[in-house]
Amino acid sequence: MNIAATMADGGFTRVPAQDELRLDPHAAYVHITTNETIEGVEWSNEPETGAVPLVADASSDILSHPIPIEKYSLIYAGAQKNMGPSGVTLVILRDDLLQRIPDGLHTMLDYRTHVENKSLYNTPNTWGIYIIDLVCRWLKEKGGLQGMHRENTAKATLLYDAIDATDFYRGHADADSRSIMNVTFRLPSEDLEKKFAAEATAQGLDGLKGHRSVGGIRASIYNALPLEAVEALVSFMKEFERANG
Amino acid sequence: MNIAATMADGGFTRVPAQDELRLDPHAAYVHITTNETIEGVEWSNEPETGAVPLVADASSDILSHPIPIEKYSLIYAGAQKNMGPSGVTLVILRDDLLQRIPDGLHTMLDYRTHVENKSLYNTPNTWGIYIIDLVCRWLKEKGGLQGMHRENTAKATLLYDAIDATDFYRGHADADSRSIMNVTFRLPSEDLEKKFAAEATAQGLDGLKGHRSVGGIRASIYNALPLEAVEALVSFMKEFERANG
Repeated sequence: MNIAATMADGGFTRVPAQDELRLDPHAAYVHITTNETIEGVEWSNEPETGAVPLVADASSDILSHPIPIEKYSLIYAGAQKNMGPSGVTLVILRDDLLQRIPDGLHTMLDYRTHVENKSLYNTPNTWGIYIIDLVCRWLKEKGGLQGMHRENTAKATLLYDAIDATDFYRGHADADSRSIMNVTFRLPSEDLEKKFAAEATAQGLDGLKGHRSVGGIRASIYNALPLEAVEALVSFMKEFERANG
Repeated sequence: MNIAATMADGGFTRVPAQDELRLDPHAAYVHITTNETIEGVEWSNEPETGAVPLVADASSDILSHPIPIEKYSLIYAGAQKNMGPSGVTLVILRDDLLQRIPDGLHTMLDYRTHVENKSLYNTPNTWGIYIIDLVCRWLKEKGGLQGMHRENTAKATLLYDAIDATDFYRGHADADSRSIMNVTFRLPSEDLEKKFAAEATAQGLDGLKGHRSVGGIRASIYNALPLEAVEALVSFMKEFERANG
């Protein structure tokens, strides 16, 4: 494995720029995670990988905005963030990659099995797939991925604007790498962060504690979260700063 | 692979007797399917395999009756027949088998992954597991597996008695191999079987057409099917014989 770029030195506050990537032109593929949920950073444009296939884990921002599908050779995404219930994984695979699958793989791990059997080789998670169908219909009614993107951008902008409006809150990710799905920020102290999360929970704004590996505050504002929920959070933030700032 | 016994010559109407098994004492394991849904035959007692581990696919009769768990080294079962929604598989594994797992397996196919992570290595099908919890509570209220077995035996007996009471219907499986989950029988002609299935469907008794590979009639009377549904089928059978016998 060749690590084309790591942002560890800077505390993972951004995605690498194109000229920071040390790509191997003979690599089998280049892998990215399109949105990183813990630090709240997201690729706004795909890296250029030339003739090397681009493979992406898109679990946390799939269906949140349109993507230039022709840039990807393989996308995989767990359903449980933006598509529906857990226990379903979506895989989008470019046809020619099927030719590169080595023989001898386990039946279930060989994508040809699922292509040849139209994803019905095994008895699948029927209820999960049914709910995803309902979610897709709901997405279409909202104006498809473009409509969803508008709404997600409005939600994220509202929250980042509230963070940027004061020194009390500090956004974690660099402005050009900010995730529209996971908004991460800090308060002046860990004690205040603890108090913030506890008081928010008491007001019905749950799940704001940052991932245990990094701390801070994280607001996950996936497709299913309405604008009103972000408005409520912004109100709470202003109130909290007034009382504790 | 060594086929210890095949009932193909007799048309798969029964499970093999102990003295028909050509077991290899050096085999890694002996595999059985505890209930066979297409032909409707079921093991009423486990085969004796000596020191060779017994491995079973119990997908179609798991939780339908108590089992002598100590006779099995590994049981696997898809949830979708007697446990809950599709997309969940139950695996019961004897501890010492973990020592025999070869290195180099794919992470998800190595049972040690799931044992060490208490079945939470990946994000599982949470809704399916939740429903299975509700089904287990329901089973306990019914008197557990013994209560369920009494009810399933009553359902199956009612149906087999109706089959045996007349020459119009002929049971497929031998009496001592009859499944309490999938009751298979024939009518005097394929035309009558077609008519039977169609008229039953019209009366709300659906899914009675036999598996496409064998034809005939098959009543699947899994845990979730109430006694009243079998009573309705038996009434319909008598009526149909009166009109067509």
